[in-house]
Amino acid sequence: MNAIVLLSGGLDSATALAMAAAEGRACHALSFDYGQRHAIELIAARRVAKALGAYSYRVVDLNLRGIGGSALTGNMPVPKGRTESEIAEGVPATYVPARNTLFLAYALALAEVTDTDEIVIGVNVLDSSGYPDCRPEFLAAMQKVAELGTAVGSLGRAPVIRAPLLSMTKAEIIRTGMALGVDYSLTHSCYDPAPSGAACRACDACLLRRRGFKAAGVPDPTWYI
Amino acid sequence: MNAIVLLSGGLDSATALAMAAAEGRACHALSFDYGQRHAIELIAARRVAKALGAYSYRVVDLNLRGIGGSALTGNMPVPKGRTESEIAEGVPATYVPARNTLFLAYALALAEVTDTDEIVIGVNVLDSSGYPDCRPEFLAAMQKVAELGTAVGSLGRAPVIRAPLLSMTKAEIIRTGMALGVDYSLTHSCYDPAPSGAACRACDACLLRRRGFKAAGVPDPTWYI
Repeated sequence: MNAIVLLSGGLDSATALAMAAAEGRACHALSFDYGQRHAIELIAARRVAKALGAYSYRVVDLNLRGIGGSALTGNMPVPKGRTESEIAEGVPATYVPARNTLFLAYALALAEVTDTDEIVIGVNVLDSSGYPDCRPEFLAAMQKVAELGTAVGSLGRAPVIRAPLLSMTKAEIIRTGMALGVDYSLTHSCYDPAPSGAACRACDACLLRRRGFKAAGVPDPTWYI
Repeated sequence: MNAIVLLSGGLDSATALAMAAAEGRACHALSFDYGQRHAIELIAARRVAKALGAYSYRVVDLNLRGIGGSALTGNMPVPKGRTESEIAEGVPATYVPARNTLFLAYALALAEVTDTDEIVIGVNVLDSSGYPDCRPEFLAAMQKVAELGTAVGSLGRAPVIRAPLLSMTKAEIIRTGMALGVDYSLTHSCYDPAPSGAACRACDACLLRRRGFKAAGVPDPTWYI
């Protein structure tokens, strides 16, 4: 059983990789250089892939800056210091249009030619920003695309899209990862890091991360400014 | 009403563009440089977009050579001289894994930030190769993705994916395009053109094109070797 694991370099996808590896999958990690302002996450992704024993690691160039429409790829500011209810409400400025659709489409193409059984994505709906492309309904629609839009799907062998973190809280994700030996100091979540790489402490990703470690009762190893 | 029209430079997408323009859409043409061996089609796409009055034309770099698995992006030979029944049967070597999923995903992202009403794709199931990602079931699944995986979809304003040629024969497509003033000498269909740009006459795309002009009773303006 082999799997392509979408790896951003953040806390969630690192845990998803650890879980898939612990379940005996031969994991191939896949990251995207999409023009994200926090491209430093790609350095984190590479070290996470190595530390967790991924069979391969690949970065694909898929520049979304030409599309814009997001604080992560354009000139809009990254929201800071939002409250829990503000984070939970609506689609935030850090949503990148159709990002997960594109990432999954690419993973699908790669899975098809490499005869890969599963595509693992670390999305979750609790304790996360209100991104439409992290919801189970969206993933079910992409599964249909995998079945109907590929040659392997025509043969009844479409890759299965799995989201093992889907209904876990951030604290549960962290506890699960700790039990599997994930070194979270290798991961990077911040949307707006300082040039040094230190996390800003105030963007949604930092807030959710900090809250997660606190709720898990685990020391937060993140290097904050 | 505005539309993003996926434009390959071939006969079908040129007709789809002409139809959308004739229906009063402000059309924005979108092509992909995906490492196709027949990259000459991009020159055709540009001139077709201009001739048919597209409001804009954009080529996006989305290299699929790193994925391979197709005669159009890898080292496999392009099948030649196949019979009608051979073309109709199974998925051909010229299928590019998840290509239309990727193209539609990108168009979706672009549509979302530009508040575009429709995405037009020139796929058709009659008189075409057996590509899984040209079928109506696949398009319906992508429509679901548009509705569930985007911010505009969350607001009930997902772009509509339209395939106006879906159940037309090649001859009907050509007759429709002729009536709308499409100059098919500007289009390029061949998967394996000579360095001069002349069409090979024998790949599936050439065979379907030649058969289409014959059935339509229209002189074929293609420059064949």
